[in-house]
Amino acid sequence: MRQALIHRVPMRHPGDVSGVEALFDDGLRPDAVVAILGKTEGNGCVNDFTRAYAVQALEHLLARRGGREDVALVMSGGTEGGLSPHFLVFAEAGAGVRAGAEGGAGAEGGASSGSGAGAEGGAWSGGGAGAEGGRGSEAEGEGGGGGGALAIGVAFTGEFRPEEIGRMGQVEATAAAVRAAIAQAGIDDVHYVQVKCPLLTSERIAEAEGRGATVATRDTYHSMGLSRGASALGVALALGEVAAVSESDIGTDMTKFSRVASASAGVELTRNEVLVLGHSAAWRGPLRIAHAVMEDGIDLGAVQAALRGAGLAAQGQLAPAEEARLVAVLAKAEPSSSGRIRGARHIMNDDSDINATRHAHALVGGVIAAAVGRTELFVSGGAEHQGPDGGGPVAVIVRAR
Amino acid sequence: MRQALIHRVPMRHPGDVSGVEALFDDGLRPDAVVAILGKTEGNGCVNDFTRAYAVQALEHLLARRGGREDVALVMSGGTEGGLSPHFLVFAEAGAGVRAGAEGGAGAEGGASSGSGAGAEGGAWSGGGAGAEGGRGSEAEGEGGGGGGALAIGVAFTGEFRPEEIGRMGQVEATAAAVRAAIAQAGIDDVHYVQVKCPLLTSERIAEAEGRGATVATRDTYHSMGLSRGASALGVALALGEVAAVSESDIGTDMTKFSRVASASAGVELTRNEVLVLGHSAAWRGPLRIAHAVMEDGIDLGAVQAALRGAGLAAQGQLAPAEEARLVAVLAKAEPSSSGRIRGARHIMNDDSDINATRHAHALVGGVIAAAVGRTELFVSGGAEHQGPDGGGPVAVIVRAR
Amino acid sequence: MRQALIHRVPMRHPGDVSGVEALFDDGLRPDAVVAILGKTEGNGCVNDFTRAYAVQALEHLLARRGGREDVALVMSGGTEGGLSPHFLVFAEAGAGVRAGAEGGAGAEGGASSGSGAGAEGGAWSGGGAGAEGGRGSEAEGEGGGGGGALAIGVAFTGEFRPEEIGRMGQVEATAAAVRAAIAQAGIDDVHYVQVKCPLLTSERIAEAEGRGATVATRDTYHSMGLSRGASALGVALALGEVAAVSESDIGTDMTKFSRVASASAGVELTRNEVLVLGHSAAWRGPLRIAHAVMEDGIDLGAVQAALRGAGLAAQGQLAPAEEARLVAVLAKAEPSSSGRIRGARHIMNDDSDINATRHAHALVGGVIAAAVGRTELFVSGGAEHQGPDGGGPVAVIVRAR
Amino acid sequence: MRQALIHRVPMRHPGDVSGVEALFDDGLRPDAVVAILGKTEGNGCVNDFTRAYAVQALEHLLARRGGREDVALVMSGGTEGGLSPHFLVFAEAGAGVRAGAEGGAGAEGGASSGSGAGAEGGAWSGGGAGAEGGRGSEAEGEGGGGGGALAIGVAFTGEFRPEEIGRMGQVEATAAAVRAAIAQAGIDDVHYVQVKCPLLTSERIAEAEGRGATVATRDTYHSMGLSRGASALGVALALGEVAAVSESDIGTDMTKFSRVASASAGVELTRNEVLVLGHSAAWRGPLRIAHAVMEDGIDLGAVQAALRGAGLAAQGQLAPAEEARLVAVLAKAEPSSSGRIRGARHIMNDDSDINATRHAHALVGGVIAAAVGRTELFVSGGAEHQGPDGGGPVAVIVRAR
Repeated sequence: MRQALIHRVPMRHPGDVSGVEALFDDGLRPDAVVAILGKTEGNGCVNDFTRAYAVQALEHLLARRGGREDVALVMSGGTEGGLSPHFLVFAEAGAGVRAGAEGGAGAEGGASSGSGAGAEGGAWSGGGAGAEGGRGSEAEGEGGGGGGALAIGVAFTGEFRPEEIGRMGQVEATAAAVRAAIAQAGIDDVHYVQVKCPLLTSERIAEAEGRGATVATRDTYHSMGLSRGASALGVALALGEVAAVSESDIGTDMTKFSRVASASAGVELTRNEVLVLGHSAAWRGPLRIAHAVMEDGIDLGAVQAALRGAGLAAQGQLAPAEEARLVAVLAKAEPSSSGRIRGARHIMNDDSDINATRHAHALVGGVIAAAVGRTELFVSGGAEHQGPDGGGPVAVIVRAR
Repeated sequence: MRQALIHRVPMRHPGDVSGVEALFDDGLRPDAVVAILGKTEGNGCVNDFTRAYAVQALEHLLARRGGREDVALVMSGGTEGGLSPHFLVFAEAGAGVRAGAEGGAGAEGGASSGSGAGAEGGAWSGGGAGAEGGRGSEAEGEGGGGGGALAIGVAFTGEFRPEEIGRMGQVEATAAAVRAAIAQAGIDDVHYVQVKCPLLTSERIAEAEGRGATVATRDTYHSMGLSRGASALGVALALGEVAAVSESDIGTDMTKFSRVASASAGVELTRNEVLVLGHSAAWRGPLRIAHAVMEDGIDLGAVQAALRGAGLAAQGQLAPAEEARLVAVLAKAEPSSSGRIRGARHIMNDDSDINATRHAHALVGGVIAAAVGRTELFVSGGAEHQGPDGGGPVAVIVRAR
Repeated sequence: MRQALIHRVPMRHPGDVSGVEALFDDGLRPDAVVAILGKTEGNGCVNDFTRAYAVQALEHLLARRGGREDVALVMSGGTEGGLSPHFLVFAEAGAGVRAGAEGGAGAEGGASSGSGAGAEGGAWSGGGAGAEGGRGSEAEGEGGGGGGALAIGVAFTGEFRPEEIGRMGQVEATAAAVRAAIAQAGIDDVHYVQVKCPLLTSERIAEAEGRGATVATRDTYHSMGLSRGASALGVALALGEVAAVSESDIGTDMTKFSRVASASAGVELTRNEVLVLGHSAAWRGPLRIAHAVMEDGIDLGAVQAALRGAGLAAQGQLAPAEEARLVAVLAKAEPSSSGRIRGARHIMNDDSDINATRHAHALVGGVIAAAVGRTELFVSGGAEHQGPDGGGPVAVIVRAR
Repeated sequence: MRQALIHRVPMRHPGDVSGVEALFDDGLRPDAVVAILGKTEGNGCVNDFTRAYAVQALEHLLARRGGREDVALVMSGGTEGGLSPHFLVFAEAGAGVRAGAEGGAGAEGGASSGSGAGAEGGAWSGGGAGAEGGRGSEAEGEGGGGGGALAIGVAFTGEFRPEEIGRMGQVEATAAAVRAAIAQAGIDDVHYVQVKCPLLTSERIAEAEGRGATVATRDTYHSMGLSRGASALGVALALGEVAAVSESDIGTDMTKFSRVASASAGVELTRNEVLVLGHSAAWRGPLRIAHAVMEDGIDLGAVQAALRGAGLAAQGQLAPAEEARLVAVLAKAEPSSSGRIRGARHIMNDDSDINATRHAHALVGGVIAAAVGRTELFVSGGAEHQGPDGGGPVAVIVRAR
């Protein structure tokens, strides 16, 4: 039996990996680490170098302490409002001995078994205990996967050329990586898929155009949305949430979306890195995951439905004893394109001083903090094709009683 | 018997007063309006001209439609996160006929009766149905004032010279205005005091220094905090919340604070404008008010305690029928000076791109929106001496069943 | 003989029109004013309400003092770097008596005579004393128009629907207005055309889409560029600088541009307002204008060529006596789309905290201030189709000796 | 004879040290490098992590390639306007063999010989070929040092505790380090002193207060100014530019300043790092330095005076052949505290969206780029006690013919 381990570690600045190193000093095997998510305090947009800074610091640490070659390092910039910068370290207990084999599987894809997993993945999108969510939110119960424990799958695409970003090549490569991650971890029901994806910079655009290629957009900020959108549609495709995707859907047809994808774009990489979380009968341990979909940015009902789905008593704000069982919260945030929330105008899309995604981080961070009484929340912005327009998935990982 | 009227009106941009004009077209007497609060979409800081723009538009409208001479126009900039720009129009039914007399009382102070009101004001700070607030929040029940209805008092200080801002002169003039407003309206228990106060600009500082005067600070952004702080201490003094204030307390001794004050600074005025809300046996009508104090920025319990104090069923997010009875929410937001919320680091105070107060607006806006299911919230930033460090007062006005 | 008058007036804040009012008190006839340009201190982007605030203040002033009905009020937001907020008041001496007739001509177009002016407009693009401009800049000598004096033409388009913005309708209406303004003023050689144009907001987009119309872009910030671009192409079309324009050129084919157009977008209007400056044999007085085209953002040579073209001795920074003869400087600024200036990378296009146009304002403002020793400069951002990529027109108005 | 080498290297992002590594590949000895200055593209304020990111990347590179232990790594954030991110690598030809001894001298101070250097340093502040500077600017001729060549001195203070920052301890430690650097390099006339200094963060303040210490300010942004100011006064003290400094002068008495100091604050260090540039008879090679003092932000005359002082023909913008001889430009920028430039209002100090120092970077960058035709300029913000209010030193390093 395999077992997932998750550690939540604060950081004092984007280069501060002392908390992660302390885990190693306290006994976590560095080669057991398969992924690290980080919420860093940059602007989360094109020129957010806090992500790359954290990645550089983590890479040096892992190299020095004997970590694996290929760890998914998914930094999401933006801790607006009260959000608190932190790392989430995902490890597999005793995994170090198999590191080479797994890494290989992740990197190379294993697409054939992936399709099976994708087909089974349909399980997670049915049912739902959504009655509690006042606005029709759904949530998966912990028994949804038939009694297994939290399982972690990681995979990577190859490097993308600038002209592939925000296009079908990225969609399909992401879908293959999702299937590979599901197969590698033996996940029965998928509750959350984190993708870290690249963006276009002026320099990358110039490089492509110098070769005669054309890019999906020459607006660097806009490229973040297209890259996230293509990645999310790749997840939806792998999981059977959408039957098909065409290039013109990307960034346009917002009726096509994944209910479990969370994609975050950054300048610090040129491939997609995929982390799939779900339950598996082949994994053991106390960790459980549940998710729901926020229908809009203030959908407290959905957050509470996810919490209840994972077995927490969620009335008002979590009581301290319940909050202590909450390991991690992972959510997406974005402004509604209508410019309204339940009929009232918001100014996110018209603000030329603060990017819309930054407003959305802060808003959704406030709503989730209200529910759980904590600000160390992995709220990531830009939810194109990730949940309905203006809303997004929210997943919670808890320690079962 | 007097009666308070409150209308909540959206605005499409800071100069859009068409919603207010529509109220007049629908029968509201322009000369019944005693105060207008507005949440405008500027940065809420020194160079936020959305406040002055809205004031100019409102003044032209009131002049054109026959409004009073002296209406408190309290614009608060900053609709970060999901907050929605809107006006709150405060009127007194049938008040127009007595406009001259009231305006005079407000403007001139009537300090003698004010002291009595201040003494009685002690009533509002006792009691409290705070048991529901997990973190020790308090809330006033609707019966706290002995069965009266919502009453509105308005008063103004004289013009301040730049060197008076953030100093004892501003504290004392504000205290006198609060007492005058209480006396004028016959308020028995005070639940909320809104103050609009001026700030220092480079030009005002230069003017003062040209006369040989020294100002409290030469940092224009910092002057906003000192002006708000002096104003809040003036409220606390008038209401007996603090026994005494000295100049060195302003901006420094954060153990001295008001539990009902909300002060907002703006470049568009040079005096303080004071709006006092409470219950009075001399007023009738369906409106009631309650308040609580958020101990930190994510104190959902306090928000729910205030809602319950006002008679709403606040479990999870307000159900639509309850939300429909909610007329207005008025709250303060500020970052904790410790740089932490329940032990987790926030980045508000170290962010040189987005002012700390803007982060706080968005966070508290998210928490309150989670509770009430609405984003038209008057969340105002900079809570120096307004509630405990990192927290602040929250008041709710409801229509009784 | 007609005569142009120009007054440069500082403003203390966007609503401060006391300087303009002082002109009236000092004898300027309010009904002689045909246009007011303003450089206000907002962000110059979508949510810059300083422009509308200034317009509202000016409209109230003009109404109160007896100004014309239809004055072009062209506010350009953004005083980054050292730029100083100010108004430029354009009047026609003795014009008040003919106000009705002129206003009508401007408003209604008079397109027939415009085409002739457009044909003659070719004169302004020849010649040039550009030898001094190290990078091939050109400048018009004051004798280019055959000895006339500065002339001012003003015209307006009709109101645009949201779906017309950034499209051929806007191009053609602008071209007609330019021709009308030239005809009305009898301008022989055109040196500068200022256009104020609208933008799309979330609300305007929703309104159009509600009617089943589609807009040129759903990105509100992007709409500013399309609106400016369409307006500039309209100028180029009217002046014969381009032979033809098609809708797909707008925002795309940057080889098509005007060498004299300056367009500025703002939320505060829904039509285009056009101000044409040139020389006319039918006008008298001491004012002269010259222009050049900056090839990139640091093209000091072009600025100095324009200054010399207008008769100033421009070696190093202008000496005080020469600077005193300089009435106004009008220029466009934009980042190069290549992400480079003379081979060195700039970060304007990749900055998600400060919009690219704001960087460009500050840079070009610094370069021009270096040349003239003054910071009251009308540097306007977003130079799509206004001069070559990364550069833009610069015009200077001087008082002849 | 010793010899200074300076390489100017572009960077594609703050972590891109490939240009520096290419120097090593091309033959530069890594252990010859004594200092690297970098202009990175962050906000230059409290939460600018681009500086620390670049430092981390440089440290890894130097460690990997055999650089010295103690290299001054002085990153200055902020490339507003058109400024281009780049590194300036300062090396001493053949210095590697003596690295240990020098490093020791720098680190430990050698204060006794420093006082002699300080006394002789008086030479640089006399004379001046300032006649060309229209506004009274001064510039040092290349013969000022009596025929020597550019010399580089480096030294470090010990680590500062938070409560020492912005206070006399920092002043005196900086002065000792300046004297040590002068002595170590045998500098005869000082033209430029770069200091990198720490700032206070919320966390550092809390640490100090936890020990019962009080810090100079609790405003983290303000701490940057105090740290720069104390550092600059340390330079002024070491060079005899001021007779004495008291703690109350720091940040207050702006009549006390250095004409050659440039201080830059960053979160990434806790000591001061000092780089002194001047001429020395003990050094050889083609490099020469000259400096002048900009009296305000648009003082083109001072820039041109410095260029001429270094032997360049500076009429209008530098011709390409002259520009090719220009190795580096180092300058300070700050907004005038009066809120005015030559009488015209600027908005830098009242802008709550963009910090004042960022505006000043862009402005001064534009003025210098106008003079030299290049945007790779080390313009650093925050010029407290560095040149007169609103102005600052500008130094140029050229390759003699």
